[in-house]
Amino acid sequence: MARRPEDIPRSASPQDHLDAVMKLLARMRDLADVRRRLEALHPADVAYILEGLPLEKRLVIWGLVPPEREGDILLEVSDSVRETLLADMNRAEIVAAAQHLEPDEIADLAPDLSDEVVQDIIEAQDVEERAELQSALSYPEGTVGALMDFDVVTIREDVTVEVALRYLRRFDELPSQTDALFVVDRDDHLKGTLALKKLVVTDPDVEVATLIERDVVSFAPDSDAEEAAQAFERYDLVNAPVVGADGKVIGRVPVDAVLDFVRERQESKELAKVGLSEDEDIFSSVWASVKNRGPWIALNLCTAFIASRVVGAFEGSIEKLAALAALMPIVAGIGGNAGNQTTTLIVRALALGQVSPSNARRLLTRELGVATTSGVIWGSVLGFVAWLLYRNVALGGVMAMAMLLNLIVAALAGIFIPLTMERFGRDPAVGSSVFLTFITDSMGFFIFLGLATVFLV
Amino acid sequence: MARRPEDIPRSASPQDHLDAVMKLLARMRDLADVRRRLEALHPADVAYILEGLPLEKRLVIWGLVPPEREGDILLEVSDSVRETLLADMNRAEIVAAAQHLEPDEIADLAPDLSDEVVQDIIEAQDVEERAELQSALSYPEGTVGALMDFDVVTIREDVTVEVALRYLRRFDELPSQTDALFVVDRDDHLKGTLALKKLVVTDPDVEVATLIERDVVSFAPDSDAEEAAQAFERYDLVNAPVVGADGKVIGRVPVDAVLDFVRERQESKELAKVGLSEDEDIFSSVWASVKNRGPWIALNLCTAFIASRVVGAFEGSIEKLAALAALMPIVAGIGGNAGNQTTTLIVRALALGQVSPSNARRLLTRELGVATTSGVIWGSVLGFVAWLLYRNVALGGVMAMAMLLNLIVAALAGIFIPLTMERFGRDPAVGSSVFLTFITDSMGFFIFLGLATVFLV
Repeated sequence: MARRPEDIPRSASPQDHLDAVMKLLARMRDLADVRRRLEALHPADVAYILEGLPLEKRLVIWGLVPPEREGDILLEVSDSVRETLLADMNRAEIVAAAQHLEPDEIADLAPDLSDEVVQDIIEAQDVEERAELQSALSYPEGTVGALMDFDVVTIREDVTVEVALRYLRRFDELPSQTDALFVVDRDDHLKGTLALKKLVVTDPDVEVATLIERDVVSFAPDSDAEEAAQAFERYDLVNAPVVGADGKVIGRVPVDAVLDFVRERQESKELAKVGLSEDEDIFSSVWASVKNRGPWIALNLCTAFIASRVVGAFEGSIEKLAALAALMPIVAGIGGNAGNQTTTLIVRALALGQVSPSNARRLLTRELGVATTSGVIWGSVLGFVAWLLYRNVALGGVMAMAMLLNLIVAALAGIFIPLTMERFGRDPAVGSSVFLTFITDSMGFFIFLGLATVFLV
Repeated sequence: MARRPEDIPRSASPQDHLDAVMKLLARMRDLADVRRRLEALHPADVAYILEGLPLEKRLVIWGLVPPEREGDILLEVSDSVRETLLADMNRAEIVAAAQHLEPDEIADLAPDLSDEVVQDIIEAQDVEERAELQSALSYPEGTVGALMDFDVVTIREDVTVEVALRYLRRFDELPSQTDALFVVDRDDHLKGTLALKKLVVTDPDVEVATLIERDVVSFAPDSDAEEAAQAFERYDLVNAPVVGADGKVIGRVPVDAVLDFVRERQESKELAKVGLSEDEDIFSSVWASVKNRGPWIALNLCTAFIASRVVGAFEGSIEKLAALAALMPIVAGIGGNAGNQTTTLIVRALALGQVSPSNARRLLTRELGVATTSGVIWGSVLGFVAWLLYRNVALGGVMAMAMLLNLIVAALAGIFIPLTMERFGRDPAVGSSVFLTFITDSMGFFIFLGLATVFLV
């Protein structure tokens, strides 16, 4: 658990704050107490409390938050909670809350606001901020621009450490998470970075030029945010400059934005895998949930229907030997499990850069080897079990053969589906499973019932 | 794509390096070229190249890496690749590589080393490092201690900025990612932090005491690493002090360790969900893969077998009406899809702190409402389709009713399985799916075939 050196309100975990606020809320006369408690909390902790409350209590708490803190808290809550809070605010309140935010922060909120409100917010900005805000709004989600902070401190290289320190002392404070200054020439072109930790250990009369790290990882504003996140991880970055096509510094990506991005992307992938959007949470209305989950169920219904028609084609065989109906789900299901293992490995290998045209054939050979070996082993086990249950040697043989063939199908599908999705620019981690299950189900039924029809009935 | 201001070797993406190295490797006489190219690369980029090569080529490259860089590269590669590299090194080589690492880094490698090698490494350390290494080795994976770096710079609060800067100038350099000094009293107890970005903007004659951030998030070495990662995200931290039970500073958690932790945990969850370990990659041997994937297939075989026996109990009904065999996978499959949606939402709500005893009942009511509504809608659709296919009104009715009931079962299982796993301290994101599918399959078959037996045959 996070601990703090002094006994201050934030010393507790956010869960403790939530519990305390719920107790205070239970006695509604303590609203002043709640307000005082909220004032002492970090915006992220207030956000945590709002997340944990059902709608009507959430709005009571939201009403206690002073306008100048609303923007920071809106940035911290999840999409579904943000929607409910914004729905409770009128246009003027939203514009007022935005006044306390930086342009890049406003841009993060913009997707949840109506065009008119965004227009009002833009008009309420002063000239310089308005230009930054319009620039921030122009970068789509998933680009470096969307993670960018405009607040940077630049310096020239032809000064001494002493001059640099004197220059810095003219600032009241440096932007959050600043660990380095960006060194630029007179045209604002990036020359490198000067780490604060180097500045503070160096004698005052040394030239800044000798301290500069020139081998700097920088990004274009339209770079892929995922690639930037990988670079942060790979090179242990805290800040990276963002440089325009003209070579001029336009901002920076701070590591806190990267960490948030990694978490959010991970979370939205988890949801997308089962066909959910971030707009639903456990406090959403029943009808909103039914609608949110509907398309996924409909898609799976279509694939299940096709698989069902495969079985339907063999109803004659099943009438003669009902054991087939009992055994066929095993063949299909294990195919699905094995195929999902292959797909997961391929998705990971794609992320690690392990898959290239030159080793695709090798990969295929290997997976087919694994599938054949597993198929012989598990097919024998299942064939034996089928024989034990029904004392029918031919049925056991068909079961074993179907298992082997469906594992080979699963391996092929498990390789080709993610590779094809990647080639078409789709995230292979998200949609692969539904296609894969469709193939392993349909083919599993077809192979097993087909073999049974030929050899058994 | 990551861009760098000058035309240096690192300017390319790691994929470009991999392609270039593979081209050079194709002409084996260019090994000296490969070596030169590797020398200019960041250890993480060398690691990327090693990841992307099949075993024999990987070992050729590994042989070109100078001993003093081996440790850093071993830290960057994935578990499965690390295993292959370590297998290629003898005891003395591993001990030599470890000499170039910090104690916390050695501790990260230790799980992949034999006890004898670890003992050799400990003995090769000097006294202070040995104590740190033994301390680092004592923290299990998943704790803050395992992410901890011992390298911290501490300072007293009763000095001026000028004195602090003079003190810092006695250092050659500060530890990587240092953005703040830890302020301690004479007993090494943490009093707060002093951000470098504050130090550099403050006049030399100001007392450090006035600049200190006293509201600091710190951790105990045995704190949960996942909770620490959430705190980093929530409070936008770059470094957090680690404080022992006696209140003394023993190290820090740097944000790069947190970012690595978040990624690795995410990756190992993805693999664990389909029953895979990190020891397998697409270059592993066929037999190693078959063994790695076996337990998961065996587990799923058991659950599929039980579901199959449920169907077996109704073979008499299926013989009379083979359409049941064609329709039953739809009921089971859609139940599984819907249940996985519920589980995913619950797992997310648990992570956001949205689930508490006080709202568990509310949650249950809501999910049952969603399941009933969806069940009526999709049940009607399926019932109609069944009627269309078989022109049997009773069959359509049974299909609709079974769909509705199985969606209710799926909602209940989708809530209770993750909550139960959480209560028993298991990760609900990892094992829930196999249990859930087991229940929705078995119950789906039972409900549909049971209703059919009562009303149709």
